[in-house]
Parts: sequence; structure tokens; C-alpha cells
Amino acid sequence: MSDRAETATIVSHPPVSWTATAEAVAAELRATAVAREGAGAAPIAEIELLRRAGLLTLLNPTEHGGGGGRFVDSFRVVRALSQADTNVGQLLSYHYLLSASAFTRALPHQRDALIRRSVDEQWFWGGASNPRDAMPVLLRDGEGFRLNGRKTFASNAAVADRITLRAQLGDSIVFIAAPGRAAGITHAHDWDAFGQRLTESGSVEFRDVAIARGDVLGPLPPPPAKDVSPAAALVVPTHQLYFVNFYIGTAEGALAEAKAYILSHARPWQRSGVAAAHEDPYVREHYGLLYADLRASLALADEAGLALQDAHDRGAALTQGERDAAAATVYAAKVHSTRIALDVTSRIFELMGARSAGAAYGFDRFWRNIRTHTLHDPVAYKAREVAEYAFTGTIAPNPLYN
Amino acid sequence: MSDRAETATIVSHPPVSWTATAEAVAAELRATAVAREGAGAAPIAEIELLRRAGLLTLLNPTEHGGGGGRFVDSFRVVRALSQADTNVGQLLSYHYLLSASAFTRALPHQRDALIRRSVDEQWFWGGASNPRDAMPVLLRDGEGFRLNGRKTFASNAAVADRITLRAQLGDSIVFIAAPGRAAGITHAHDWDAFGQRLTESGSVEFRDVAIARGDVLGPLPPPPAKDVSPAAALVVPTHQLYFVNFYIGTAEGALAEAKAYILSHARPWQRSGVAAAHEDPYVREHYGLLYADLRASLALADEAGLALQDAHDRGAALTQGERDAAAATVYAAKVHSTRIALDVTSRIFELMGARSAGAAYGFDRFWRNIRTHTLHDPVAYKAREVAEYAFTGTIAPNPLYN
Amino acid sequence: MSDRAETATIVSHPPVSWTATAEAVAAELRATAVAREGAGAAPIAEIELLRRAGLLTLLNPTEHGGGGGRFVDSFRVVRALSQADTNVGQLLSYHYLLSASAFTRALPHQRDALIRRSVDEQWFWGGASNPRDAMPVLLRDGEGFRLNGRKTFASNAAVADRITLRAQLGDSIVFIAAPGRAAGITHAHDWDAFGQRLTESGSVEFRDVAIARGDVLGPLPPPPAKDVSPAAALVVPTHQLYFVNFYIGTAEGALAEAKAYILSHARPWQRSGVAAAHEDPYVREHYGLLYADLRASLALADEAGLALQDAHDRGAALTQGERDAAAATVYAAKVHSTRIALDVTSRIFELMGARSAGAAYGFDRFWRNIRTHTLHDPVAYKAREVAEYAFTGTIAPNPLYN
Amino acid sequence: MSDRAETATIVSHPPVSWTATAEAVAAELRATAVAREGAGAAPIAEIELLRRAGLLTLLNPTEHGGGGGRFVDSFRVVRALSQADTNVGQLLSYHYLLSASAFTRALPHQRDALIRRSVDEQWFWGGASNPRDAMPVLLRDGEGFRLNGRKTFASNAAVADRITLRAQLGDSIVFIAAPGRAAGITHAHDWDAFGQRLTESGSVEFRDVAIARGDVLGPLPPPPAKDVSPAAALVVPTHQLYFVNFYIGTAEGALAEAKAYILSHARPWQRSGVAAAHEDPYVREHYGLLYADLRASLALADEAGLALQDAHDRGAALTQGERDAAAATVYAAKVHSTRIALDVTSRIFELMGARSAGAAYGFDRFWRNIRTHTLHDPVAYKAREVAEYAFTGTIAPNPLYN
Repeated sequence: MSDRAETATIVSHPPVSWTATAEAVAAELRATAVAREGAGAAPIAEIELLRRAGLLTLLNPTEHGGGGGRFVDSFRVVRALSQADTNVGQLLSYHYLLSASAFTRALPHQRDALIRRSVDEQWFWGGASNPRDAMPVLLRDGEGFRLNGRKTFASNAAVADRITLRAQLGDSIVFIAAPGRAAGITHAHDWDAFGQRLTESGSVEFRDVAIARGDVLGPLPPPPAKDVSPAAALVVPTHQLYFVNFYIGTAEGALAEAKAYILSHARPWQRSGVAAAHEDPYVREHYGLLYADLRASLALADEAGLALQDAHDRGAALTQGERDAAAATVYAAKVHSTRIALDVTSRIFELMGARSAGAAYGFDRFWRNIRTHTLHDPVAYKAREVAEYAFTGTIAPNPLYN
Repeated sequence: MSDRAETATIVSHPPVSWTATAEAVAAELRATAVAREGAGAAPIAEIELLRRAGLLTLLNPTEHGGGGGRFVDSFRVVRALSQADTNVGQLLSYHYLLSASAFTRALPHQRDALIRRSVDEQWFWGGASNPRDAMPVLLRDGEGFRLNGRKTFASNAAVADRITLRAQLGDSIVFIAAPGRAAGITHAHDWDAFGQRLTESGSVEFRDVAIARGDVLGPLPPPPAKDVSPAAALVVPTHQLYFVNFYIGTAEGALAEAKAYILSHARPWQRSGVAAAHEDPYVREHYGLLYADLRASLALADEAGLALQDAHDRGAALTQGERDAAAATVYAAKVHSTRIALDVTSRIFELMGARSAGAAYGFDRFWRNIRTHTLHDPVAYKAREVAEYAFTGTIAPNPLYN
Repeated sequence: MSDRAETATIVSHPPVSWTATAEAVAAELRATAVAREGAGAAPIAEIELLRRAGLLTLLNPTEHGGGGGRFVDSFRVVRALSQADTNVGQLLSYHYLLSASAFTRALPHQRDALIRRSVDEQWFWGGASNPRDAMPVLLRDGEGFRLNGRKTFASNAAVADRITLRAQLGDSIVFIAAPGRAAGITHAHDWDAFGQRLTESGSVEFRDVAIARGDVLGPLPPPPAKDVSPAAALVVPTHQLYFVNFYIGTAEGALAEAKAYILSHARPWQRSGVAAAHEDPYVREHYGLLYADLRASLALADEAGLALQDAHDRGAALTQGERDAAAATVYAAKVHSTRIALDVTSRIFELMGARSAGAAYGFDRFWRNIRTHTLHDPVAYKAREVAEYAFTGTIAPNPLYN
Repeated sequence: MSDRAETATIVSHPPVSWTATAEAVAAELRATAVAREGAGAAPIAEIELLRRAGLLTLLNPTEHGGGGGRFVDSFRVVRALSQADTNVGQLLSYHYLLSASAFTRALPHQRDALIRRSVDEQWFWGGASNPRDAMPVLLRDGEGFRLNGRKTFASNAAVADRITLRAQLGDSIVFIAAPGRAAGITHAHDWDAFGQRLTESGSVEFRDVAIARGDVLGPLPPPPAKDVSPAAALVVPTHQLYFVNFYIGTAEGALAEAKAYILSHARPWQRSGVAAAHEDPYVREHYGLLYADLRASLALADEAGLALQDAHDRGAALTQGERDAAAATVYAAKVHSTRIALDVTSRIFELMGARSAGAAYGFDRFWRNIRTHTLHDPVAYKAREVAEYAFTGTIAPNPLYN
């Protein structure tokens, strides 16, 4: 974050191919994935890697110096990165989602300024939005405001240049993009799960944090609460589709590691009668079954990506019906990818054999990462929403939380 | 088949939309599916319906009066028809495959003449190609030939205008498109499975059947046997992708019937606490799960369809590597759709409840049809081939039979 | 039913082994199963076969001339019969359950008389108890009563010597064992499902049927309604465990047929490289997997049988906690056997290959029978009750119906 | 190992109940399981706990001061311990198996002496038997021998009082029970898997280790190699059934932790409409499904335990057919428990929700432990052996290794 000049010389927008860029970054991440997880440091270096590759500004318009990429590009990038490191896939996903969400809510002049600064300063975005916690409180203080409150599971926040959150201002709820390192912000660093260890998903506390008017996005007072517009209701499906893509990327990475191991390390089972592990009839059968499942999940994720991109492209013209159809496709992809990713990451070991449990390989991280993040919201409820759409033609606007 | 003039007035090529045409035909088929299966008549009327809708000539070039459709169109048509009647999906699939295969093997002048006659006379094609049976024998007889032999599982043959088969001619193997109603051809009508009852897949016998030189496709003597070209090796993947599409169509049809039944007939379970069956939490969950699986299978089938179409479009320029990549995608789709179709067609009843087992609904036909046809070739071997490609970069050219 | 003298010469109580008796009957049933299903006659001959083998009176005390068997014996008998014919397994299950239930509700002198007549006349019992229908009405008529009403899904009733049902008598609900062929009883013969075709599960109508005081079981007026006793609350678990056993028996029968077919008829797949189908690595793997599942289900069913028998043996001393523990075990067995039986009966075909779909084998009847009956009550709700017990230590007394 | 006198005051043989003893030990282990895994120390304290509880000598005859327990007792003990700590379940399993195997091979006077010393000194047994490594070499050296060689995956060896192994002596293969701490034995401490971290399963090297005649079990020279007797061929099924029991115990432990967490910590999902997590319809459904699967696995394991105990009790009278039948039952239990344990230990998180991934709970250890050990031998091959028995009536005598 210190040396933007250097960064500027490295990034060229748009890259020849986002996927090629992501794959190059993934190769670096893969080489160090086990060691970095073991060390458990905050993901400063990882974010710097994304920054230098130009991936942080992928979604920002070229006229503001951004990469000019689209959501579909960002999904593919997240997927490619997650083949090597699901932590990084998640970090970047939340960055994309939270920044895009902030820009949507900003007034036009705020948006332009915010995007420009975000690009110029190569911001990394975080958020503090767990709806299960109490809403932070914003109080007027002279020209500006003071923010107080506490949020758990604050994604990216501990390493973020900007932290988005909602807060109570009198009778209204306002949306804030707070400076990430403002005085009064403290991080508990209490994220301690068995998976996604390198994500920064701990608690954050705001104590009398000074918030400028410009950091409060949208008109003041905010317009009266009403039903969210179809376009705005794309936030949750977009969120979910990032998950889908980092789940599938993880499963792809796991299966690729398994394939490489089988071809290079695995020994045929004694009674198999074959000369090489990859010729074992059961290794082939089960690899084929897992691969077929994963290809199907991937195909549906791609279809959902196109559907969601189309919905975003419709902008204000998007109807509720169109939004709901896109959401239902995304949620079907979520249901499917959750199950497949769990299955693939657990079953690869059966293809590789006993020595693949060696801690040095770190192959269990795929399952641990998937198992941890797929608990974000229960898959049974997502399946229920898919059916809700089929049976009623509508789907809850905000299906994660009421 | 008698009144081509009448047909000509009905068919307009190309239809505005092959899918719309197929859906209209499917609607007719759906209304009579249970009754027709019960009656068990030969599928003469069904084929006539396809003929009048212009679907038999979909793949034929417009310059010969055909529909000018592509393989991807034919896959979608088969899928749409199979939502109502998997028998018809299968009949049309074999027709497309067998006729396309014949045209590929014909000499240029044979091909033109054959396509023109096939379009003009609206032929329906069958075949007698079970590799597990002995090869029929062709003997020279004056200017022409005499054919003798017997084949089991002869798809479409009993109702076909042309029957394709391979036969032994001296030391060579030749490919024949025999007139379907020639003297000496008898059908055992011994197809009697619990599913796909309306397909004509019984045994055929050839006794001194007169075969003209023009019915023997390709040069005589045939070129020395050698490895099949990549383009020619698309036959099996194409075959398999028709299966994929009629499996998925069947599953779509089953799930659609379940949805309609749930919304119109099903009663909520006593202890569910809900007012309507479709609101039951388990009905929603499991419908959503099945739907997600099916959507994934559908997405992969579409991806495989595009890949295979691209391979066909490459023609003689197709490399073995390109062919194998397309085949591997198709086989992954085959593996996936087989399992999903079996699951969906068996589990829909759990969503509908006890009365849905009423014979009048005929909902068991979906499972019976899928269960019967998915035995065509073992899915474990197909999974093995998918892995073979992943591990070795190649895939057997003719994966059904050695 | 006509010639009891003849029967008497055949039956010797108790048989050397109930299981051996049942297996002998099963062998007869197996030989004719496909033909009998095709004919679709009422199961008169089947019931007569059970009668002559002494199986109808298995549960009745030896002092009344019965077989002196226990519930665990009856479960094994039902399982053995269902290996050959699930219809007969179901018929006998309902007979056991409905007669036992009647005897439980009778006053002591009624019970003795009823059992004695049931044994002497070798009654076959049916019932009309679908709780989703309106309650029939009993009106006093001189010394006796008149019964009016209609019930759907009346198990065994159309071929029963006695039909049990509950009826409204003034403000009370009474339990009746009506003579099966009384004037005024008509059967709609409207059972027409795709499975369990030979069971008699259609509608029955009662029009001014004369009911004697002795046919109304228990005291009159009945004691005030109150919570059912733990012993009486064994009815539903007992009912469910009969289901478990005919599901498992069916799956055993299906797997046995598959094994026999594989060893005698199946041909090895072309690319398998083995000389016999049973040596195919995938046939072995999947047979082994299905077999392991089935053995586990069987072991749990046996454990549940012993637990339930113990509970019955406790009689009036049975506590609610003991009853609930037994019920939870039975319901776990129900959940497990439902899924395994569906899986086994659908997947056996993959072991046998394409020709096993031949209608002459009738192998699809196993799935059709299981698929039809497992819709009796939703398995998700049964799983929920299992968890209810784990989480709360209690379980609903009458978990089928509210 | 230091203070046998103290131990002696604690152990009373036989305990009132082995299971109660095991459960008491399990309670101690459970309280420290996460901390002990984190510390990663050699399992000295754990073995001492087993020793003081009298569990090490469970299988030894009372006349030699042992516990007088049977194999079925030891299976239940292993299962109970594994509910808390699968490492300890495995350690004790190998101890039982390796010591029993040594006693079987010893000459009568060796056996008596060995058992007596094992009981008196409360030996803990290990082994070095990986058949994939080269066979160690035994050379005569005066009255005794010298042992040289290296073995990987040497279970328990690094903490064992006695290490069993096979070695080459001239043309013969002899069985040795080597003193665990003899000069020349070094341990690589290279066991480093992501699961079963506290087991000692690393490599061991023997360099000129002095071996006394008494440590070479059985006659010298050994009898000519021939087919193993049915009784001796129980080793592998016994081995496998220990695995089955520590898999099932682990799954029981995981489900018990999930239940406790759900009742005490879990919060209901926002859209669930219920007041407590355990009332969630999907939590109940899926808990019930997992529980039913586990109960079935448990029932089959118990059945296999009785079958195997019977086979052991038959001793020299055991026929090959009886041995094979017992083995097939054990292997079916192995196949089943492998899959269920993997499923339960991965899916419990879905019942508990996002916070259950907290590292402090350590709930992932259940899956890691199961995933690691179930790679011991491929489950597909075990399924194949189950089918081999069904199809041929025999089963390979040594199904792990050729």
C-alpha cells in the first residue's frame, strides 16, 4: 500500500486476459499455500499480489483508470485464484462485492470521487455487515459524525482501506464507507476457524470514529425505507455467486492436485493388477465421477454468471421477474456447488491413497476451507428458495437475512 | 408415409424455432402418453407426427429441401420431445444418428441422391448394428447383392424406410443402407422391456434380401481398414449426446409433472403445519435439490452440445486431440445425466405423496424409461473413459465396443 | 376358507421353524410372481397359501390353537415372503397388525372368543382406518347397531373375514371388528397403483351394515378419551416395523435375483477384459456396496425387532420412556430401510445389464412395489421424529397422524 | 510404565463393566482432546491412562492376571474410547491385535511366558508390518540373532514395550516380538498426517538389534510355508473390525458433540421461524438421517463382532467356510462404516452452523481422523471382496496384501 508508483508501472489495464492474469497469480499462491497457512499471518502480501496484478480494480471503469472488467470476469478470476488458495478467492470476492455495493449506493458525485480514489490509491475494501449483530450508531458531530458499535464476522475489515457498514442515524439507516484505519477502529483478530484461516473475518469495534459527510453514501436524510429495487436486490445473488465460484475453484484445485499426485506419487494398490495408480479401475471410475460432477457444477456456474451479468446490465430497467429468475439460477448453482465441493474435497484422498494424508501436502486444506465457508448460510434454505421460485414465481428479495 | 403432398403443405423449412416446433409436438404427445404406452402399438402415428412437423429432415441441408438445422438444434428437439415421451425422443435420436452416419459414409453422388430421396420421401431411418451379434453376410448376385443375417436390438428398424448395417463382403466390411421393406426382411417384434416400450428395438432377420449397388455406401472395394478419422470418430460421442438429451428431457418432464401435481393435487402432510403441499419445508428442500442437480446436468449437456457441434463443424480439419476433448465432455455429461435422471425420476414421488402412484397418472414411466435405456452401456465404464482422458490425454476411439 | 378340515391336516403348530415355513411359501410365490402380477387377480390364492401354511395364526396363543409365535417371528416371516412377493408381505403384515390391535382393544371375554374364532375359522383380517377420511357413524338399532360411512385405502378389506375400523357413536369413538362379508359392505376395487398391485387397498363403503354388540370391542360406553397408554402406543411402531421388514425383504429378493442373473445370464461387458460378468470389477464393487448397505439395514431391523418385542413383552409395565426408545429405534430402521430399498431395487439393473430390463423377468416390480409403499408416510418426517427423540427425549405418540 | 505398584492398586480384574471403564476413560480423554492434539506430544500419558484403567490387559486370561475379556469386549472398548479420541482408539486396537497375533504364533511355553510378562509389566505392543517395505533380515549371532531392516508406518512402535515383525531368516520367514527399547532401534518420528496425529505410526529402523531365541516366536526352523489355517486367517478380519469400531465410535462422538452443541450453543437460522436451533426442520431431518445411518452401521458392527467372536471361539475347529462367512460380514461392516463415518464427520457442521467451525471446538478432528485412517486400504477393494464371497463362496485369505 505504500508504494503506488511502483504498482502503477506493473499494472496495465485491461490485461490481455483476466484469466491469464489470475492464473499467473494463482501459480504464485499455489507454491506457498501450505506454508502461508501454517504461518497464519494477516494476508497483507496476498493483497499486495492482487494489487500489483491489477486485480483489485478489475471492476472499475477504464475512464477512472480501472480495469473495465465485468462481473463475469471477476467470477472467473475468483475461481482461478481459488484453485490455489481459497482464502484469496474469498478476500477478493468480498472486496469486489463490498466496493460495488458502495458505489451503487453513492450519489453520482460521491461515486465518481470514490471510484477514482479507490483506483488511484488501489484500495482494498472490507465490510462489517453481520445482520445478527446490533446496528452501529451514527451521531452528528459538527459538520461530520461519530460512529460507535461492534460487528462480528467483519469480512476483510482488519486489512481494509475502506470498511462498509450500515448504521442508525436517528430514525434512518445510512450506509457508510469508513476509512479503514481511522482512529477508534480496533480489530479483535478473533477469527479462528479451522478453515479459511488467512481470511480476516474477525470482529471490529468502532469507538467515536470520525465520519465525514462524504463517507455517508447517498442522500441525507435517506429516502424513506421502501422495497428494494430489483437492481439493488442483485446484491445477494452476486454475493452468492462469488461463493459459488470460490467453491468450484477450490474443488477444481483439489482435483487438479489429486491428478498430479496420482500421476507422480501414487502407487498402485497391491491387488489391483495394474502397473500405475492411474490405471486402477476404481481410481478411474471415481475420478471420472467426481470430474463429471464438477464439470456440471462449473457449467451451471457459468450459466448463472451470464444470467447475473445480463441482469446487472439491465440496470434500472431490470424487472422483479428478471431479477428473480437470475437469482433462482444463482441459488441453484449455490446448492449444487456446495455439495459437489464438499464431496470432491473429501473424496480426492481415496484416489490418492494413504500417503496423501501427509501434512506436508496440505491437501486437507481444500476440505477445511470449503467446510468452513459453506456454513455461511444453510444450503437447505437455499434449496427451499429455489423451489419457492419454481412454485410461486417469486423469491425472497433478501434471502440470507430477514 | 403415404401422402407426402399433404405433408408438404404442413412443413415449412426452417421452422421459426425448432424448439417451439418440438414443444408443440411434445404437447400432443404428453396428452396421450399414458394411453399410448398402455396400448403398446408400433409408433407409426408418433413418427407421422414428427414427419408432419418437419422434424425428420431437420438435419438435412436446405438446398435438398431439408430443415438446415444443426446437431445442437436436434439435441434440443430431442430433449423437448422427451419431456413428454422418451420413446419418441429415442426414435428420433436414432433416426438422426443413423441417417447422418450413412450420409457420412456415402460417396458424394450417393450422398446427394440419398439425402434428396430421404427428404422427398420423408424417410425414417433405422439400424441393425449391435456389435455383439455376428456380422451379416453380403454376397454378389449379378449386378447387385444378396444379404443374409440376423441382428438383435435393431433400433427403429421395424418401422424404418431405410435400415443401416454393416456386412461382410468377402474380406471387407461394407456399410449398407437397405430399403426398410424389402422382401426377405422380417422383424421378430421381440422388444419387450419394462421401459421404452414404444420404441422398436427388436430383432431383424435378412434372408436373401436384394441389395443394389447404390445401397452399398462408399467405394467398392472399400479402402483398407485403418484407424478411423477424428471426424468419423464423432459417431459415438454424437450417439451418446442424444442419449444425454433424452435422459435430461425425461427428467425435466418428470419434474414438471411433479410440480404441476404438487400445485394442483397434492395435499399437505398432516403434521406439516402448512396449508398447501408446496409449502411443506421438505417438499421445497427436495424439489430444490433435484432442480439444482437437473439444472447442472442441463448446463453441462448444453456445453457438450456446443463442443460437439464445433467438432462437427471442423470437419476434416478436426484433430484427434480436439475430437477427444469433445468426447470427454460428452461422456462427462453422459455420466452426470444418467445418475441425475435416475434420481429425479425415482424421487419425484416423495414430493407428491401416496396418491401419485396411481396408475392413471403413469408417472412411473419416467423411471422405467430411464432405467431401461441407461443400461445401454455401463456408466462406470463411461466414467473410466472420462478419467482416461484426464490421465492420458487420449480416449478410446470407439468406447462402446472394442 | 371353504375347507378348514383340509387345512387342519396341513398346519402343525408351531412349525419347526417359522422362517423355514415362510421360505417354502416364498418359493411357491416366487415361481409365479410375474405371472400373478400380470393377471392382477384378487389375492385369494395367496391368502389361502398363507392359511394352509399356518401363517395366519402365527401370533395367536397356542391355547387357542394358534401358532404361539411372537412379533419377532412375524417380522421374519414377512421379510422372507417379501423376498418373493411384496404384495403378500404387505397383506400378511396388515393382517397381523389389525388382528393384534383388535385383540388389544377387546374386553377379556371378547378377546378370547375373537381369537378362538379367528383361529378356528382361519380369519384373514383387514381394516378401514385412513385418518384422512371422515369417521364412519354407528347408530343404535335395537340390540345392535347400524354402520354407515366410507373409507379409502382400506387395507385387505376387500378380501377380509373381519374389517377393523373406528366409528362415531354419539359423542364417543368406538372400535369395531365388522364381519367382512356383511350385507351393506361394498368395495370399490379402486386400488390401481403402479406397485403393490395385488394388495387390496381400495375404498370400502358401509351402508346400514348390521353390527352386533360383540363386534364393538371394549366397554360401552367407552372410557373417556385420554392419552393413549405406552403399551397401546406401540401400534404405530409395530406397524412401521412391518413396513421395514417388507421393504428389506424386497431388497433382499431383488439382490438375490440380481446375483442369480449375474451368475447365469449376464455377459461380461466388451471392454471389461474378464471372462464372466461376475468378475467385472464394477459389478463386484457395486454389488458389494449394495450388499453392505442392505446388511446394515437388516441388522438395524433385527435390533429394532428385539427392542419392540421387549416393549410388547413389558405389557402394562411399559413406561413411556421405554416405549419412546423402542419407537425411535424402529423409526431409525424405517428411515434407513426406505432409502436402501429404493436404492437397491433401482440399481440392481446396473449389475445385470441391458437385457435384464426384459419384461419377462419382471425385475422392475421390486422398485415399483417399494416406490409405491414407501409413499405411505414421508420419510423426512420420520427422520424428524428420530431427531425429536434425540433432542427432547420424547417422541409423538401417534406419529403418522395428528 | 514406571510405577507398576501404583497401577496394581487401581486395576481390578475384571472390571464390573468394560464399557463403563472405557466410558470413564473416554470422559477424561474428551476433556483434553483438543489441547492434546494441539500439543502433539507422544501418547505416553494416554497409554498410561489405558494401563491404569486395566484396559491393556483386557484380552489376557485371568489365570495370568489379565482381564479375561473377549474380542467383543475389546471392540466395544475401542468404540467407546474413540467417541472421545480416535487416536487412542487406534493405539489400543493395534495393541490388542498385535499382542493377540504374537500369542497365537508362539509355542505354548513361549505364549505362557509372554502373556505373563505382558500382564505383569503391563506391556504396550506395537508392530512393524507394512508389507510394501522390504522384509528385515535376521542373522544368527551366537545363541541369539541380530536384526537389521527398516519399516514405514510402524504402528505404536515408537512407544511400544514390544514390537512385532516378520523377518527373513535364511530361506524362512520368522515372526519376532522384539523388545521395544533395545539398542539399535531408532524411530524416525516421521508420522505427520493431518489426522490421527497422536498415533505413533512413523518409521522404525533396526540396526544390529540383539534378538534372543525366545523373542522368535514359534518353532525353529519354522514349518514349511503353506496355506494359512482358517483360525490364523482371522487376523485380517479382526484387524478390520477394530477399524470398524474406531470409525463408528468416532462418528458417534462427532454426532454427540453436534447434539450437545445444537442444544447449548446453536442459534436458529433467521428465516427458520423456530425459537431454538434444535427445532429447525432441516436440522431435525438431517440429524435423523445421519443418526439412522449410524445406528445401522452400529448394528452391523455388533453383528460382525458376534460373528467374529464365534469364529475365534471355534479355534482349530473353524472351517474355511465359517471363516469366510465371518470375514465377509466384517468387510461389509468395514465398507459401510467407512462411508458413514466420513459422511457424519463432514456433515455435522451443517447441523451446527457457522460458529461450529471455531478452532477452539476442534470439531474438524473427527473428519481429519477418519479421513486419514480410512485410507489404510481402499474401500472399493473391500466392497469387491464382499461380492467375491457372494459370487464365489470364498474370499481371499489375506485381503489386504498379496
